[in-house]
Amino acid sequence: MSTALEPFDFAKTRLYVGDDLAEGAEVVLDQGQTHYLANVMRKSAGETVLLFNGRDGEWLAEIAKIGKKALNLRVLKLSRAQTITPDLELLFAPVKKLRLDFLVQKATELGVSAIRPVITRRTNARVKQDRMVANVIEAAEQSGRLDVPEVKPEVRLDALLAEWPEGRRLIFCDEARDAAPLAEALEKSDSDGPWSILIGPEGGFTDEERETLRGFAPAIAVSLGPRIMRSDTAALAALAVFQAVKGDW
Amino acid sequence: MSTALEPFDFAKTRLYVGDDLAEGAEVVLDQGQTHYLANVMRKSAGETVLLFNGRDGEWLAEIAKIGKKALNLRVLKLSRAQTITPDLELLFAPVKKLRLDFLVQKATELGVSAIRPVITRRTNARVKQDRMVANVIEAAEQSGRLDVPEVKPEVRLDALLAEWPEGRRLIFCDEARDAAPLAEALEKSDSDGPWSILIGPEGGFTDEERETLRGFAPAIAVSLGPRIMRSDTAALAALAVFQAVKGDW
Repeated sequence: MSTALEPFDFAKTRLYVGDDLAEGAEVVLDQGQTHYLANVMRKSAGETVLLFNGRDGEWLAEIAKIGKKALNLRVLKLSRAQTITPDLELLFAPVKKLRLDFLVQKATELGVSAIRPVITRRTNARVKQDRMVANVIEAAEQSGRLDVPEVKPEVRLDALLAEWPEGRRLIFCDEARDAAPLAEALEKSDSDGPWSILIGPEGGFTDEERETLRGFAPAIAVSLGPRIMRSDTAALAALAVFQAVKGDW
Repeated sequence: MSTALEPFDFAKTRLYVGDDLAEGAEVVLDQGQTHYLANVMRKSAGETVLLFNGRDGEWLAEIAKIGKKALNLRVLKLSRAQTITPDLELLFAPVKKLRLDFLVQKATELGVSAIRPVITRRTNARVKQDRMVANVIEAAEQSGRLDVPEVKPEVRLDALLAEWPEGRRLIFCDEARDAAPLAEALEKSDSDGPWSILIGPEGGFTDEERETLRGFAPAIAVSLGPRIMRSDTAALAALAVFQAVKGDW
């Protein structure tokens, strides 16, 4: 679905920006990124960093001017061509703060293209959209990705299923023990995607929710083995197995 | 390698104990577990919990007497027979505090049989053995496992390889891009184990360490895809893929 990235320069600071990137372009960083480069990373004019925007590949850029509230970069040359991340969405019942931060970061490292909180009957955590966005950007910068996962607004499970896009498959991790193992289910499926993976809340889906999901045509119920996992563990495990079997590993 | 566990009673508190378990046996809890059952879980005499010791299966037990510093349980009957966890050891360069707690908990949920910190050239975190032991026990109690992973003492990479047991295979996650993908390497291998998975430190192995590992006969170099992962993410991803391909999922 995707080819391996070229090796990239670990030593270089990487920044995600919204601007178009091309040779000779000028990029002006906002106050937050200016503070990060100038004060945290202690960069000076003339030093170089890497920029990516999810569209134009990764570019080497030189610091042209450092001000108090803005920093000007001049784009020098392409370092890696844009690659396409497989369409793999993580739908998850929110977990609490620190576990959510880690989940969002690690899902980004594992190559999700989108994340979306799903509210179920037994969900009792809420999420902060802007915090998730900050987390996916930081993780994308550090992981060498050339794009940033989309952070979709939270949705109730019933509304999610009612508006389900045609052609998209839904892998749903079922705690009932008769579902097929995830790797086997993926190998058997002839679908090339797009895919979504749905992980329930710590307390599990209700019987009614499970029945609805079992009867939902695009859904495949899968098992993640004999042990009970916390929902953030289950999400990461399912993403890793997906990438190994159907994804870009 | 193992069969699915019988479904177990989610509502029941589960405790790991050192005592032998058999019908009619009396188990006396220490002060810590007494406090947990009496004050945290607010259990009274006559209520039941589940006990396991890694050898005799899981047993239903009734609280016979609650004292200030000890609690007496009477073992009633077997609820699940003992199962054997596949021999899968996680060798990891330590990460820092909270990430280490999560890693150890999640590795337990993912079914490792042993964990062991490995000191490499670029390792800069240290571990607390007793904290890891507390974490694996708690995670085992919550995950429905019938055993607790062994927590082995930390070891230097060179000493680890020098004393390597015959017949054990070593999966080593190599950041160089020419290694085989993990799932493919596992499917090709005709070994039934035992297996160890080695994850390097955040800064990676040194060139010298990588050369040593590449030349080490029991080792298989594998790739975990095109993105750079933090070492705790890589450890969890490798364990999940192992369980899906060679393990007990």
